[in-house]
Amino acid sequence: MTTWCRFDKDGKTSFGVIEGDTVTAVDGTPFGAHQKTARSYPLKSVKLLIPTEPRTFYCVGVNYTDHVMKMAQKRGQEPKFPKRPDVGYRANNALIAHEENIVKPADAGEEFQYEGELVAVFGKRCRNVSKENALDYVLGWTVGNDVSERGWQASDGTLWRAKNADTFKPMGPWIVTGLDPNAMTTVIRVNGEERDRFRTNGMIFDVPTYISVVSKYCTIEPGDVMWMGTDGLPQNIKPGDSVEIEITGIGVLRNKVIAA
Amino acid sequence: MTTWCRFDKDGKTSFGVIEGDTVTAVDGTPFGAHQKTARSYPLKSVKLLIPTEPRTFYCVGVNYTDHVMKMAQKRGQEPKFPKRPDVGYRANNALIAHEENIVKPADAGEEFQYEGELVAVFGKRCRNVSKENALDYVLGWTVGNDVSERGWQASDGTLWRAKNADTFKPMGPWIVTGLDPNAMTTVIRVNGEERDRFRTNGMIFDVPTYISVVSKYCTIEPGDVMWMGTDGLPQNIKPGDSVEIEITGIGVLRNKVIAA
Repeated sequence: MTTWCRFDKDGKTSFGVIEGDTVTAVDGTPFGAHQKTARSYPLKSVKLLIPTEPRTFYCVGVNYTDHVMKMAQKRGQEPKFPKRPDVGYRANNALIAHEENIVKPADAGEEFQYEGELVAVFGKRCRNVSKENALDYVLGWTVGNDVSERGWQASDGTLWRAKNADTFKPMGPWIVTGLDPNAMTTVIRVNGEERDRFRTNGMIFDVPTYISVVSKYCTIEPGDVMWMGTDGLPQNIKPGDSVEIEITGIGVLRNKVIAA
Repeated sequence: MTTWCRFDKDGKTSFGVIEGDTVTAVDGTPFGAHQKTARSYPLKSVKLLIPTEPRTFYCVGVNYTDHVMKMAQKRGQEPKFPKRPDVGYRANNALIAHEENIVKPADAGEEFQYEGELVAVFGKRCRNVSKENALDYVLGWTVGNDVSERGWQASDGTLWRAKNADTFKPMGPWIVTGLDPNAMTTVIRVNGEERDRFRTNGMIFDVPTYISVVSKYCTIEPGDVMWMGTDGLPQNIKPGDSVEIEITGIGVLRNKVIAA
């Protein structure tokens, strides 16, 4: 089990390995050749960055039964379950790191909500892989918050500003290898108070299924990410709130909401 | 007017400036500091690459009146015109360069079609810009072919494989600066025979409008691209076909279709 991060120290960006409270800079990347350097720092003295800048940012829209049922009930509609593992996308402009601020746009409505998600980070190029071998291509796991403005999600022709406005995609704090996605629980807290808790892999289509199906048509590259969707009925967040998404074995992704 | 390309020569990737039949390698990028080197080559001796690898790949789905009407008629539906300039996205895995092959997947259906599109390539970071100043942030223009599998477009929950399977996004051949998008015509040929011809900027929402609106919520970075949609009723293409998209002042993007 290795904890990989990407960080800035004195204006220099490096990948690093975290052990205890110390981060050791690495030459190279976790996705290719690399070796530890002699540069070690207290973890709290560095600025964590998003742990990867994906070439392609895959994101599963709807992947948990309870989420589908509760969202449909809230909208007064019949629940519609996905028939196939059709992946979606998010946009890199929206990514922010652990402890960076989610900026709520001035014209965003009250239904401005978190979505806590498991994120698979790919370590190897992946094309046409079987479900059985799919997890061999995952370097490790991180946490994502798929921040969503429900008014725009309903009104717009696409998800561009509802889910991809600047700062709407917190991801981090780091990547942990060697974890079992079947043994994870996702817990979401707002201002320290628990709002949601769900079994992370209680998915309609699981991670190996998504990877196998997507890789039949699309080459997934090292450093790419796949966000796996959320469960439950996400609640509103507002400027001043602190949102924490914790997933077993990975850690806590924390971001404060501020007004634009 | 400058013609920028990105190319490979003897395993080395560089940006370059094309003058006549010669490409001169440039140190740096067209999006920042750069200077010409002493390395010049005959254009036909280098391999052209996609002219930029965007951090975020914006793409307008529906942006021409005639396209909306003809597609609706074909599907036996009422035409639905976009109410707002809601931008969409495409995925970097799908990008290929001029003269690279579009690979038709084995299970793709007969309605496998081209869409010829103008592409704006951004040269400066762009956030919250007015419509009047929007084009100042565009470095130049290139050509895109938004290859689409209509069966998957109708059946799937997202556009992932219908429009983003590997090789479905030819872009190039290069970027030309200093052009007027209002003075362009797009011509599409299959095997040398003209299939479509339309005024490139006969758009429902024009390029400055899209840039201004998107930049209110999203920071557009140098090297990002915005594909502007297609007009007309695209036709089927099949393995063996050669597809050319020509836009006035930019040139011809040519790709052959092959079977997987």
